[in-house]
This record gives sequence, structure tokens and C-alpha cells, in this order.
Amino acid sequence: MEILVSEVGPRDGLQNVKATMPTEAKKAWIDALVAAGVSEIEVGSFVPPKLIPQLADTAEIVAHARRHPGVTVAALVPNRRGAEDALAAGAHKLTLPLSVSETHSLANLRKTHDQVIEEVKAVAAMIRGRPEDRRPHFEGSLSTVFGCTLEGMIPDAQILSLASRLMEAGCDEVGLSDTTGYATPGEVKRLVKLVRGEVGDAAVQGLHLHNTRGLGLANVLAGIEVGIATFDASQGGLGGCPFAPGASGNIVTEDLVFMLQSMGFTTGISIEGLLEARKIVAAALPDEPLYGFIADAGLPKGWAGEGVQTRNLKEDA
Amino acid sequence: MEILVSEVGPRDGLQNVKATMPTEAKKAWIDALVAAGVSEIEVGSFVPPKLIPQLADTAEIVAHARRHPGVTVAALVPNRRGAEDALAAGAHKLTLPLSVSETHSLANLRKTHDQVIEEVKAVAAMIRGRPEDRRPHFEGSLSTVFGCTLEGMIPDAQILSLASRLMEAGCDEVGLSDTTGYATPGEVKRLVKLVRGEVGDAAVQGLHLHNTRGLGLANVLAGIEVGIATFDASQGGLGGCPFAPGASGNIVTEDLVFMLQSMGFTTGISIEGLLEARKIVAAALPDEPLYGFIADAGLPKGWAGEGVQTRNLKEDA
Repeated sequence: MEILVSEVGPRDGLQNVKATMPTEAKKAWIDALVAAGVSEIEVGSFVPPKLIPQLADTAEIVAHARRHPGVTVAALVPNRRGAEDALAAGAHKLTLPLSVSETHSLANLRKTHDQVIEEVKAVAAMIRGRPEDRRPHFEGSLSTVFGCTLEGMIPDAQILSLASRLMEAGCDEVGLSDTTGYATPGEVKRLVKLVRGEVGDAAVQGLHLHNTRGLGLANVLAGIEVGIATFDASQGGLGGCPFAPGASGNIVTEDLVFMLQSMGFTTGISIEGLLEARKIVAAALPDEPLYGFIADAGLPKGWAGEGVQTRNLKEDA
Repeated sequence: MEILVSEVGPRDGLQNVKATMPTEAKKAWIDALVAAGVSEIEVGSFVPPKLIPQLADTAEIVAHARRHPGVTVAALVPNRRGAEDALAAGAHKLTLPLSVSETHSLANLRKTHDQVIEEVKAVAAMIRGRPEDRRPHFEGSLSTVFGCTLEGMIPDAQILSLASRLMEAGCDEVGLSDTTGYATPGEVKRLVKLVRGEVGDAAVQGLHLHNTRGLGLANVLAGIEVGIATFDASQGGLGGCPFAPGASGNIVTEDLVFMLQSMGFTTGISIEGLLEARKIVAAALPDEPLYGFIADAGLPKGWAGEGVQTRNLKEDA
């Protein structure tokens, strides 16, 4: 079975570090990710450079990433203005976040739920106005869906209503995003089933999980068990959400791919390649701590890579 | 459902740090663990003080821990000599490790498999020679069972044969120990089923997992799915195996209990209490890094503790 690992480090990672990664380093990182076999990369966010100067070069990065055939170039857009820029730059996938916690939505996007839904409608109309073969995939991402550091747990009814409204407003899918690192394996299973029950299985494909409380990979396992086959991750665990205090750390791409491959899933990604790409991040952000275990501990002795059962090598010999 | 979290920090943690924790600090730590609700603690190892000076006071620590009614006081014993001391001190549970990698066994215990089995027989005879109400529980622990940094993967047939020999030699149970941090969720499920198939379900109750490659808690999830209900863990992730290069880091008790409680399992343990106990470790081992996420990130807003569903608080209100 295939699992899609979507690298979000160039967006979610870089927007949350103090330093700005030079444009050339970003390009080299993306090239290394593609060389490692990563087939979907969220390369930036179309937000005003005043707000997130680290991502001011997103249009240039999208253009660069598009040179790699077969790679899905994704970008975050907070509103119709950002979507216009993303469409102009040629992003293949747009993700617009809607925080199910209205308090968090106001803090993060300065918009009420109704206002975000209006933006979604405008973006969907913009996409529909394009030739069919040039319409990007459009995801509405339900952030703080596993709980909010400001509001605590959000009622199911509110989550389901917002999921429906996103789909009705024209999204192709809704993602579930653990902005605050509150997700737990039981809740992952429960919420995926619940939201799928509301908007259909095909409309809930991906999870964006954080490792804030150490449960990131356990939550991935839970997601797989209920049929999720797309997971966001970030090299070195870079990232988190600056507007949710205490929330930090995406799940680590290297460790995620190791776990998936160890279980026999196909990712198309080389761990050695990821470790090469990680070196570019380390060199370009020397003051930023990088997380993850595989980079330090190394692969197990006898590890043969994707699609190869590593057990019982001695018996086979 | 109840899950037993067995704290192994005072043994597995302290034997692997350079500094020696003062005896009084160990006692205070154990008291704090008991106050937090921990009901099984591996308090030390009966090995020659020359080999592991950090645990030279194990007999005194066993005697201290025994003052807490209802707490299972466990100790590691490498051989019959250690078991004599453990019985004299009054340990409730003895664990004797047998490395399924003979290379590792020779490096770690300086014994072949046959020699270890002879020790197990001698210890079992010693235990049977005692009055029935004063016989400790006797576990044979299959170490490096998920792979060895020296030998790589060990053939299933060798693992199964050693599991059988441990039970025939007089163990009450065999534990599976991921000494090297090679375990993966798929392998946890496969090996638990396999060894249970050989020696019976009742004889395989516990897992000792490391977090060397970040999969510790994901491996716990896998273990739960195949019916395992006892997990070793160490406060702050202290520990590992000094004879297996690159292997470090037990799973973190605080994070494990958080995950289990979030899934509705009963542990009898207070996370706040664990964080208090962790402070004792931090103060007594100031130069030792402590791992884990909950201690830094804190509990989610609205977290109500064990046995309480934290979701939908607003709907209930």
C-alpha cells in the first residue's frame, strides 16, 4: 500500500523559525527532497511579506519547484488575495486553513468563520474560472480540530458544520490539522470517522499532525488504521504554530518514512536521500535545532530499504 | 482496561548514566513514584558493584521500596549469585535477561546461551525451595529480540527456541525487550504473536521498548493491539544499553502515561505526580539530559486526567 508523505518544512517549518532561509538554499533543499523521492512539497505561503518575511519569495520557489516533473507543488493561501498569487505562480495545490476554534481563527487569520467561508467561496470561484486542466486541487484545512490552546476542545457539531461548509463552498477535500499537538490515537480515529461520516470518505484524505506531546507517530498509526494515506511532515520537525503558545514541532519526515517503510508501506522516498536533504537545512539554519531520531541513531543493521522485509536475513541466507 | 506501567528508571536509567544518584535521592524518587501511583518499580540490579557502581546500593533500595504496601519491587539479576542477593533483600520480582543474539550475550553477560539457561535453572530451583508465599515472580527477558547492533536480525527459530527453553527452565513469563531500539509496529505485532504461539499467551505479558528511533509509543500502540498490557518505561527516558552502541533512551514514562490515559486506559498513575518525581531526578542528576514531551509542552487545555473523556467539554456544559 502506498502512503503519501507531504513535506511541509519549506512552508510550515520556515515560517516558524526566526532566521530566513536564503532563496538559493530553499531551492537546493527542494531539489534534494525531489531527489530523495518526495512527490508533494508545500513550498510556501502566499501571505503579505510583512507578516511572514521568511516566505516572501514563495512565488519564485513555486516556479522553481514546478521544474520538477511529477512533483505536486503546494502552497498555503489565507485568502482570495493569496490564492490569486498562488494561481499566478502556478501552484498545483492550494490549502486554505480554517480554524475550528473561532478564537484561534481571529488570532491567526483575523477572520470569523463566516468570513473565512466567504474567502473559500471566492477562491473556489477563481479556480472554477480557469481551464479545466489548469485548476489546482483545493483543500480546506480544519486547524485546531483536535483542540485549541485558547478554547480547549471544540464541540463535534461545530467541527462537522465547518467541514460541510468548506465542501459546500467549493473545496475538493478537508484536511484535519493538529495545530496544537493535542491529538491522541483514539481521537484521531474518532474524528476521522466522524468527519468522513459527514462529508464522505473521499473528502477526508490527509492528516497534518504535530509531535508536541510525543504522540506524532502513534497518531499516524491510528490514522492509517482508519484509512488515511496522506501525512504531512517536516524535515527535522521544523515548524509548529506561532499563534498557539507551546505548540511546536511537526512530525519528523525522516522518522515517519522509517516507520512507514518498516511496516511495508510504499513511500517512494529514500531515507538516505532525506538525510542528505536534512544537511542542507542544518547548514542554512545553523542556529535552529533539528529534531528526530533516525538522523542520530541511524538505520538498523541489516535495513534494506523500502519494500524489502528486513527480518530473517540470516534465515534466507 | 488496565495497563501496567512498570518504571525501570532506577535500574535501567541509573545504570546507564555516568553519575551515581545518591541513595537518599533514589529513595525520595521511589517514594515520589509511589505517591504518583506507580505500582511496579524495577529498583536496581544485583550485579557486582565493580561492574555497575551506580547500583551498588540495590539491596538497601529494595528494602526501602518494600515499605510501600502494594508496590511490586522488581530487580534485575544476571545470574544465580545475583538472585541469591535479590531473594535475601526481598525483591518481589526477578528479571534475568537472555540476549537472543549470542554475540550480544557474550558481550553483555559474558555467557553463552547454554550458560544463561543453566543460571535460569539454578535461580528457578532456588525460588521453588522457598515457602510458596515468599516466591518472587520470575521473568526471563529476551533481549535484542527485535534485532542486534552486532548480529542484525536474529532468526525466528532461534528466538522461539530460547523462549521455550526459558519457560522449561522455570521462568513464569518471558518478556520481549527491544534492547537496540530496532522494534517497529509491524514487528511488535508479529513477534508477540509468534512467541505467544510458542509458549502460550499467559507467558508473554510485557514489553520493554526503547525510543532510539522515535517509534517507542507507536510500538506501544502495536503491542496493545495484540493484547500486551504491561510496558516498561523510564522517567525522562533515562537509560538504554551500554553494550549496544547507538542504543539509548527508554520510552518516557510521563509521555506513555499521557498516551494511555488519553485513550481511556486505566494506569492508576497521576501525570502531575510523575512530573513531581521527575524533578527529583533532574535535581539529583543535573548533568543528565531528560527526554520527553509532556514535561515541556504540558497537558492539553481541558485535560481532566485518567478515566475522564476530555472531548466535548463545551457540549456537556
